Amino acid sequence: MTDSLIHLPAVCFVWQIAMIVLFGVFIRYNPESDAHWVEHMRTENISSDIENDFYYRYPSFQDVHVMIFVGFGFLMTFLKRYSFGGVGFNFLIASFGLQWALLMQGWFHFLDHSTGKIYIGVENLINADFCCAGSLIAYGALLGKVSPVQLMVVTLFGVTLFAVEEYIILHLLHCRDAGGSMVIHAFGGYYGLAISWVLYRPNLHLSKRLNGSVYHSDVFAMIGTLFLWMFWPSFNSAITDHGDGQHRAAINTYLALASTVLTTVAISSMSQKKGKLDMVHIQNATLAGGVAMGTAAEFMISPYGSLIVGFCTGIISTFGYLFVTPFLENKLKLQDTCGVHNLHAVPGMLGGFIGAIVAAAASEEVYSREGLIDVFDFEGKHANRTVGTQGGYQAAGTCVAIAFGLVGGAIVGFILKFPIWGDPADDNCYDDEVYWEVPEDEETIPPVLEYNNHMIHKHQDM
Amino acid sequence: MTDSLIHLPAVCFVWQIAMIVLFGVFIRYNPESDAHWVEHMRTENISSDIENDFYYRYPSFQDVHVMIFVGFGFLMTFLKRYSFGGVGFNFLIASFGLQWALLMQGWFHFLDHSTGKIYIGVENLINADFCCAGSLIAYGALLGKVSPVQLMVVTLFGVTLFAVEEYIILHLLHCRDAGGSMVIHAFGGYYGLAISWVLYRPNLHLSKRLNGSVYHSDVFAMIGTLFLWMFWPSFNSAITDHGDGQHRAAINTYLALASTVLTTVAISSMSQKKGKLDMVHIQNATLAGGVAMGTAAEFMISPYGSLIVGFCTGIISTFGYLFVTPFLENKLKLQDTCGVHNLHAVPGMLGGFIGAIVAAAASEEVYSREGLIDVFDFEGKHANRTVGTQGGYQAAGTCVAIAFGLVGGAIVGFILKFPIWGDPADDNCYDDEVYWEVPEDEETIPPVLEYNNHMIHKHQDM
Amino acid sequence: MTDSLIHLPAVCFVWQIAMIVLFGVFIRYNPESDAHWVEHMRTENISSDIENDFYYRYPSFQDVHVMIFVGFGFLMTFLKRYSFGGVGFNFLIASFGLQWALLMQGWFHFLDHSTGKIYIGVENLINADFCCAGSLIAYGALLGKVSPVQLMVVTLFGVTLFAVEEYIILHLLHCRDAGGSMVIHAFGGYYGLAISWVLYRPNLHLSKRLNGSVYHSDVFAMIGTLFLWMFWPSFNSAITDHGDGQHRAAINTYLALASTVLTTVAISSMSQKKGKLDMVHIQNATLAGGVAMGTAAEFMISPYGSLIVGFCTGIISTFGYLFVTPFLENKLKLQDTCGVHNLHAVPGMLGGFIGAIVAAAASEEVYSREGLIDVFDFEGKHANRTVGTQGGYQAAGTCVAIAFGLVGGAIVGFILKFPIWGDPADDNCYDDEVYWEVPEDEETIPPVLEYNNHMIHKHQDM
Repeated sequence: MTDSLIHLPAVCFVWQIAMIVLFGVFIRYNPESDAHWVEHMRTENISSDIENDFYYRYPSFQDVHVMIFVGFGFLMTFLKRYSFGGVGFNFLIASFGLQWALLMQGWFHFLDHSTGKIYIGVENLINADFCCAGSLIAYGALLGKVSPVQLMVVTLFGVTLFAVEEYIILHLLHCRDAGGSMVIHAFGGYYGLAISWVLYRPNLHLSKRLNGSVYHSDVFAMIGTLFLWMFWPSFNSAITDHGDGQHRAAINTYLALASTVLTTVAISSMSQKKGKLDMVHIQNATLAGGVAMGTAAEFMISPYGSLIVGFCTGIISTFGYLFVTPFLENKLKLQDTCGVHNLHAVPGMLGGFIGAIVAAAASEEVYSREGLIDVFDFEGKHANRTVGTQGGYQAAGTCVAIAFGLVGGAIVGFILKFPIWGDPADDNCYDDEVYWEVPEDEETIPPVLEYNNHMIHKHQDM
Repeated sequence: MTDSLIHLPAVCFVWQIAMIVLFGVFIRYNPESDAHWVEHMRTENISSDIENDFYYRYPSFQDVHVMIFVGFGFLMTFLKRYSFGGVGFNFLIASFGLQWALLMQGWFHFLDHSTGKIYIGVENLINADFCCAGSLIAYGALLGKVSPVQLMVVTLFGVTLFAVEEYIILHLLHCRDAGGSMVIHAFGGYYGLAISWVLYRPNLHLSKRLNGSVYHSDVFAMIGTLFLWMFWPSFNSAITDHGDGQHRAAINTYLALASTVLTTVAISSMSQKKGKLDMVHIQNATLAGGVAMGTAAEFMISPYGSLIVGFCTGIISTFGYLFVTPFLENKLKLQDTCGVHNLHAVPGMLGGFIGAIVAAAASEEVYSREGLIDVFDFEGKHANRTVGTQGGYQAAGTCVAIAFGLVGGAIVGFILKFPIWGDPADDNCYDDEVYWEVPEDEETIPPVLEYNNHMIHKHQDM
Repeated sequence: MTDSLIHLPAVCFVWQIAMIVLFGVFIRYNPESDAHWVEHMRTENISSDIENDFYYRYPSFQDVHVMIFVGFGFLMTFLKRYSFGGVGFNFLIASFGLQWALLMQGWFHFLDHSTGKIYIGVENLINADFCCAGSLIAYGALLGKVSPVQLMVVTLFGVTLFAVEEYIILHLLHCRDAGGSMVIHAFGGYYGLAISWVLYRPNLHLSKRLNGSVYHSDVFAMIGTLFLWMFWPSFNSAITDHGDGQHRAAINTYLALASTVLTTVAISSMSQKKGKLDMVHIQNATLAGGVAMGTAAEFMISPYGSLIVGFCTGIISTFGYLFVTPFLENKLKLQDTCGVHNLHAVPGMLGGFIGAIVAAAASEEVYSREGLIDVFDFEGKHANRTVGTQGGYQAAGTCVAIAFGLVGGAIVGFILKFPIWGDPADDNCYDDEVYWEVPEDEETIPPVLEYNNHMIHKHQDM
């Protein structure tokens, strides 16, 4: 590892010990995961164990968990010699981030003020995974150019900022954002872009030889793409309302993603002289439909509405990879390794505004009176909010998410500019050699006979 | 891409727009995914959200979804230089196919004639994935020899034919076929074989250098194999009856597949002089037990019955790879890249007849009176059908599926023979270079110093 | 394959036929998977199909199934030229093992003495997968050094020993061990180590050239690591009590694993001069927290308690890879290919004792009276057992598991020493060539023109 004043082991140890102390003070099981559950069932008149939220949400949780660790992790293995860093650092920062997220989200959303404790269950685990996603998205913009210690800092601040913007958007503005177009993708995307912009490396071309894929690293990346794509319906439905809410969110996301694939392929093929497809587009832009449905998936956007969203975002995202990423790099001095601008930032922003429009267009006729109240939580002090007002707040929420990403990212970027973090030199970017013990290459496997002869000679020499 | 009069981008755009229009006209949420669900619960006296079909079927749906995209996709990455095409075109055609399937299956099975709409929920998504599977199986026979536009055509007709044969088999003949031995595997297998037979290439040996695996492409293919193998119990139980139906189908499939692995290994090892195993067999024939249990999985075939089915199909499928595929290629002029004859066509046909026999052998003693009615849907106009009659219809259904596959495939094959589809030349088959931007090879990563020296010289030269 | 008096095909055939016969005699569907379910619901006053155990446990079962086949299988693909054997033999022995496990566990735990039958449902499938895990762990110690026939023998005896020790620990001693720290990991780890110790090869250095990874084989192994890591919460919660039991076990495991990742990274980085990370640690030690939570996951260990367990086991396991494995090899003559000592044996043992301590510390205040009875099954003849006594029995159970592993493994090791099993020569270990048809290497793909010219010349020569 290049010189670093802040050592990775120290960060891991100290932060993990801090987590243990804070969990000891604050985190407890909620009534559905506590051994008092049987008593709780009696008190609350719950008829069966199957009503435990675990059975409503655990399958979706596991899908989300796969997206965070295999999905994001393998999507970032596409570089020819940064697969260890892609999947390995993703593993590290998500493991830290989910602990910190349980605390941060707990303090903001789930703190019981009478006891001072945060009571957790499966929904908290899903939210913690979601909260990590923001920082993992940011990692996509920084891939290959930062040290693991820097990534830990990105995650520490990323999760913190996430919890605050989420509190503002979901609680103060009372927005709906089940799949996180705003709070996860727009925030995470702009957060990563702002950091990357501050950390601009004018001599990054010295590592150009490693900034690309090889045949098999592209196939590895497809593992990430497909698990993200397949499980996105679970992502967008994991924390929506029981019953029709989860059901509808899954259907809408499934349809939007299917539509995105076709337009991504179309634009990718059109963009090349011989109509060839580009793996970068297939790996990334095919997912934009899931991002863009993050807010509206639980609404009555209707099946063809979902297809339209997927149709447009596939086009926009692929165009982004073709034209906007090079423009950002050349004109705005913004190096975005994975193109999170096109996969998360812009589709997330669009998803926020799509959500605003669909919310504003909601009607009792389509939702039923009860349905409208359920879907938009028009209860308590929000009982008199109109759908038009809701649409306005949704749009405002999107702007809040972007602002948090840009401002927060710029600040974190400046923190990461101090020369204490051990980031790689300009000619060592995208290179696992800097942070990993890398095994010999494949072609160096010697045939049996030669090798053993060689060993025999060595023994004879001794 | 080689010369093509029908361009891929045009097909993707036009067909996707057609999907949007048709979805706008026909597809709506069903009562379980519509915001009126709370009202629906009250009307229908449903006591809890957990009774929403979403919670019965969504975990199975996600497993099936993984089989379609990762299972089929990665199983087809085994070729040394067609992994992009294997997993990428599978992704494309499944994404189109599932939309078209929702429409086609909707028109045939789920159209509400009073409103003219198709109301969809999670069961429709599963069925759409199933319907795609038929065309993905056909792709296995064509792998490396057709263009993506041809594959879109294969899928368009494949889904259409599927919906018709499914209507005949399940509704007119009133067969049971939960895991689709007949409607999915026998149909899909023979459909692909018939197309491949029409598209016979006498000079395919010009691409022989690429028709094989390398070490790591075989490991990639094992990802596909294992996800198919592991999730096949979900495949066969995804749309069976709630309760014992899903439970029993999962158990039977789990057992049959375990048994298949042992006989596949046995035959594979016996077939080689030194007892070595062949990856082609392990990747494919181990799955034949799941195919063959597609119809009978929900019946009371009994656990040892499932083991026997797996035992026999493992043997038959491996023998197919050893002897039948070479015979088909040399004598029948039928080039079957993935050997779908041995994995889908024959085991599917066997599965149909096994289903017929098990159905004919059913008794009130084993099933209970109610159980018999539930499992075979002996209700309404079929209330008086005997199990013997049912067995006969099951056998007839198998023949219908095969006939649809053969005739439909022959017709589609002739359509695909027109020289307008941009299929690869005989010496360019199994080669991603034709349709994809392929990155440099691994061994060409230059060491840092050399590369930078080279860059410096280049700069000096300029 | 090297000379073997016992041929693999014969073993597969004979044992599979034995399974069929034994299943025919003993195995039947249980009331939840039998077509009499509707009658059973009426008799037992079950209100809904959703109360079928299938819906409580099937999602967890599928996750466990993925861990067994993809998790264990791909974790063992890390060797540069033993990936086929790693994932392929794992596939074979797990497929046999789960059938044998259904019988063995059935006879010991589920035999209905009135009918002489074993009635199976989804919980039995989970237990069968668990039972296989013990033998797959043992395979980790033997990887690359034994023949497939030897592995079948390891599995035959491993499953048998497992069923007996499980009977003693869970039934006679009345221990709790939901995730199997004792019965699976401690047993399996020491079983494999004892076998490997008996099979010590003094000249194994002749295969040293192949005892290591290459870049992409390390990435393949991460697929195994991540699926194990992500689904471990399902593993530890799959067979715990409905409701809070499953919910709490999942949360505890999720937290312990997250904590383990940070301490593993810390120790791995500290151990290298330049602070680099070692893939061996990331692939393995990150999982130790899941192993160590196997017993205590369902207890009220509290969230911060789970973090502490993960914290410590990450350190211990990584230290094991750094210092204990080399010590075992050099001083104790114990060659442990995958380091199961550090991932399963020691963390499993620790998990057993952690469970004992947490059980002994249980109180009515924390669990509620009913909760305490539910969690520890203080019913029937164990109604008066105190938590202190329970703790003592848990500790005793851990010792039983270790003893079974060591003694059983030593015996099986001696059986495997007979020169009849066709194990590889000392200079052929870790080499797929011995048991597999291995395709050509990647670098040998000839360019089109050369190849075709070559073919033309060949034709001209003929």
